[in-house]
This record gives sequence, C-alpha cells and structure tokens, in this order.
Amino acid sequence: MAYQTGLSVRQAARTQSLTSPTAGLAPSHLQANLIVLPSRYASDFRLLCARNPVPCPLIAESSNPGSFSELTSHLISSKTGNRVPVAEDIDLRRDAPAYRVYQDGKLVSTEQPKDILNEWTDDHVGFLIGCSFSFEDALSRAGLTPRHMLQGRNVPMYRTTLPLLPAGVFTGATYVVSMRPYRVSEIERVREVTRPFVQTHGEPIAWGWDGAKMLGIKDITKPDWGEKSLALDGKSDFTEEDEEYVPVFFGCGVTPQNAVLMTALQGRVMGHAPGYMIVLDVRDADVFGVA
Amino acid sequence: MAYQTGLSVRQAARTQSLTSPTAGLAPSHLQANLIVLPSRYASDFRLLCARNPVPCPLIAESSNPGSFSELTSHLISSKTGNRVPVAEDIDLRRDAPAYRVYQDGKLVSTEQPKDILNEWTDDHVGFLIGCSFSFEDALSRAGLTPRHMLQGRNVPMYRTTLPLLPAGVFTGATYVVSMRPYRVSEIERVREVTRPFVQTHGEPIAWGWDGAKMLGIKDITKPDWGEKSLALDGKSDFTEEDEEYVPVFFGCGVTPQNAVLMTALQGRVMGHAPGYMIVLDVRDADVFGVA
Repeated sequence: MAYQTGLSVRQAARTQSLTSPTAGLAPSHLQANLIVLPSRYASDFRLLCARNPVPCPLIAESSNPGSFSELTSHLISSKTGNRVPVAEDIDLRRDAPAYRVYQDGKLVSTEQPKDILNEWTDDHVGFLIGCSFSFEDALSRAGLTPRHMLQGRNVPMYRTTLPLLPAGVFTGATYVVSMRPYRVSEIERVREVTRPFVQTHGEPIAWGWDGAKMLGIKDITKPDWGEKSLALDGKSDFTEEDEEYVPVFFGCGVTPQNAVLMTALQGRVMGHAPGYMIVLDVRDADVFGVA
Repeated sequence: MAYQTGLSVRQAARTQSLTSPTAGLAPSHLQANLIVLPSRYASDFRLLCARNPVPCPLIAESSNPGSFSELTSHLISSKTGNRVPVAEDIDLRRDAPAYRVYQDGKLVSTEQPKDILNEWTDDHVGFLIGCSFSFEDALSRAGLTPRHMLQGRNVPMYRTTLPLLPAGVFTGATYVVSMRPYRVSEIERVREVTRPFVQTHGEPIAWGWDGAKMLGIKDITKPDWGEKSLALDGKSDFTEEDEEYVPVFFGCGVTPQNAVLMTALQGRVMGHAPGYMIVLDVRDADVFGVA
C-alpha cells in the first residue's frame, strides 16, 4: 500500500495527487496541524501554546519569519534527550492536502485551496501543532481502532465552551475537541494507550455524556468539522452491534484556527483544512515512550 | 525590615517565629506552594502539572522519594539557559509557616500544624508549585499594588467550576484561583506586568464579573481560602475611593490540594496552608525576563 512514510504523503499532497483526509496514512508517523500567522503575533501564539499545551502542543515552527522549509523542532527524543528534526524536505505551503485562508478573522472562502503559495509572505511564521491522528495507530494495535477509521470518514470535531487560557491578543477563545466513541469498559485502556503521547494531545480531556455536557456540546450528531461517528442513543450507524458507545473527547489542533476566528485576529492567516494534516518523518516511538 | 531574603523567611518559619501568611515578604523572591504525595502518585502528578501548567507550574521536586532537602529544580535561568537551584538550606517539612494534612482525600484537622516532621516518610515526594505572590513585587513597582497587600490580609482564593484536564488518577478536579481587584482601565497593564511570570501562573486567566461567572464563582465576598478583598458592588471596604473595581483571577497553586480532595486520593498527603508559602532563594529576574 502507498503512503507508508511521511515523505510519501507530503509529496503526494505537494503534487496534488492526494486530496483526502490523512487519518490512517503512514501509520505510526506523527501528523501535524498547521497555523500560519503574521510575525507580530508569533510571541503571543507561543505563549498561548505554553499555557494550553493539551489542545495546542507546539512541535515545530519556522526558523525565521518567512521560512516554510526550515523549521525549528520542539520535539525531544525519548532515547537521546536531543531535539528530533520533524522532517526533511518539507514545504508548509504545499504539504497539506488542503488549506484554509482567513482575512481579519474571517474565512475567505469555503473552498479549500490545495496550496497557499500565493498567500505566504516573508512576514509569515508557520507553527506545527500535534495531532491526535498520531496515536490512532497505537489505539489500533491495542484493539481500539477509532470508529471513524472503520467508517472511512474524517474524525468528528466540535467547538466547545471550555475556555482557552488567554495569552496576549488571544482572549475569549475556547477549545476544539476531536471525538472517538468507545464502550465505557474501554475508556481506562484508551486513557492508558494515549497517555504517553504528550505532544499530540495525550489522554482524553473528557468522556461520556456528562463530558459532552461539560464541554457544552449539544448535538453529537452535528460536528463543526469532519463527519459524525456516533448517534444520540450511543449506537453506531456503522455496525449492527448492540453495544452502546459514549463519546470520548481529545484536545484538537484546530483550536488555534478557532482562536483566530474567535479573536477576530487582524491580517492574513492560513491553516490546514481540518483532517487534512501535514504528515512528518518522526515516528511515535522516536519521541514518546511507546512500543 | 526583616525578611528581605528567602532564607530569612524559611529560617523564621523553621523556628516557628513566623506564623503568618507570606505575601509581601522578601520582595522579588519566588514563593512556592507545596504538595507532598506518596511516591506511587508522582508520575501522574507530574503529568497533571504538564497538562495544566498555569494553575500547576512545577518548579522543583524531591530528588528522590523521601528527600526533603535535596530538590531537583525545573527553573531555567533567563540568562544562561541552565537550571537554577531553588534554594540552599531548605527543609520542606518545616519551612512553610503552616501546613495542612490529608488522609484518604480528607483534611485531618482544621488546625494547621507548624511542621510535618511526624507525617513525612521515606515514601513521600514533595513538589514545589509556583505562587502568584512572586509577581506582586513587580505589580507594586508598576503602581498596581494588590488590594490584599494594602489591606494587610491574606489573598482571597476560590474554588471554581473550570475543569482541570485529567491525568491518570487525577480526574474530576477543578481550578483554584486567586483574586486581585483592579479598575477596568488597569487590566491590560496587569496582564502585561504578569505575563513574563510563566512559572508562577503568569497573566490572569479571567477578569471582570463575566469572568467570575465563567469560573462559577457565585459570591466574591466569600473566598474558600484567605480573606475577602472586594465587595459585591465593586467597592473596596478598605478605602473611601469612589472608583469601582472588578475581580481579576489568576491560576493558584492550591489547585493540587483541591485535586487531592476532589479525587479522594488515598493515603497520607501534606501541603502548605494556603497563603503560608515556602519562600525561595531564586529572584524573579533570575528566571523571568523582568527588570
């Protein structure tokens, strides 16, 4: 099967032969969210990440304003304690299968461009944020394959009312979460498997119908991004199993894009299209204490 | 005036000649919250801090289980990039002016012992968590002296409904916040002054009466710890000024003790008494980019 490495996914996105969500591609390779900001917001954004590391785990950034290929990694090797480069041969402007473009805190078009070559300027700083797709291979190996992978759908993502801790210009924003349904009996095991993945959102932040209520999610069948994977009665519309599922929520790296919208951030901002990630060369075992 | 250094405060607490809250003592020196846990909870607690660094900024911990004087610092020098030892000649069992003791998630006594010599075992691990008293000197120098210092009171602290992100055994807990009243026109300046203090809670997490509501704080005149410093109508009961104040909320290092209560953590746990901190040798300018 194609797409066993991060580079193969990036090259396919770059040449626009890959135009679908990236869940399940290049198993065990880290996947990343992208946000590209005018340089004047860079220090406030780093602080936003430092104060909210679960939804916004910063794994790399442009080495200088304008750098789209030279990145400074914040990932530390679990073996050597040294920084691990996230990828060779990477281009932040072309390596996600789809992008979103914002002007003054508003989405410019619902059409998702396949690159941002014409948007990128010498003043833009790109940030890569960890993605929960990175632990889906570990979940699958533990017999806990996420529903949306079995369904062949994009993961469902939701806006919440959980406040993001403010940092500089970033005030008044809230968490975005991804959701994977599990049986109640599976939740502790899901927590254990995902716990080591500290820079790709780690263990769930809430679970169960109480968790949905606490996050202010009113209708689980209507995600704000991606596709639904659970009905209101806890039944999957995918199988005829009688088992009941409950929602399990993880931090989501779409949070920065949502913060750009909620703070009406001025200027030109770009991000990946939710679910259409940049896949890296780093593998989970390189940076997390996982088998 | 006495107590110009961290060591002088620690020695006074150790000899039990100091028995009052520590706000305003040894200006510009970092002050720390203490939580002491059975060693089996240590890794989950480190993860709790990593996932919630604003209420739980971990600044040092016992070098080994049972160590009350040998500490491993997590503070990094703003000048050299190296670790900064938090204190020479420190004893976690005696250097706070007052302590609290918990058994199986319940406070053992409302009486606050002056040391925990008889409680400490070879299996206990002590953690020092940053304290917002550390930036009060910077606020004062900026003409923003906190009300509770002018009043000569302990800072008011509140339980909130804002969920702490779960980590291992620590589930279902919420933030504790400290509160300092300011005029609306002063809030941006307060945010700027406190922003660099990333390991002592940093800039506020919420402000204004809307902020109080968002945190689930129903009566600002009834703090859960410390003493009130603001009336419901925004008037101070300290001055005759006509100015109106609003509450400004910061992360608070009492959060771990509250988490011990809310998760009904089994075993013997100790902490400092809220407001009665361990004062360190490190000064704010050693670790933060402040004047």
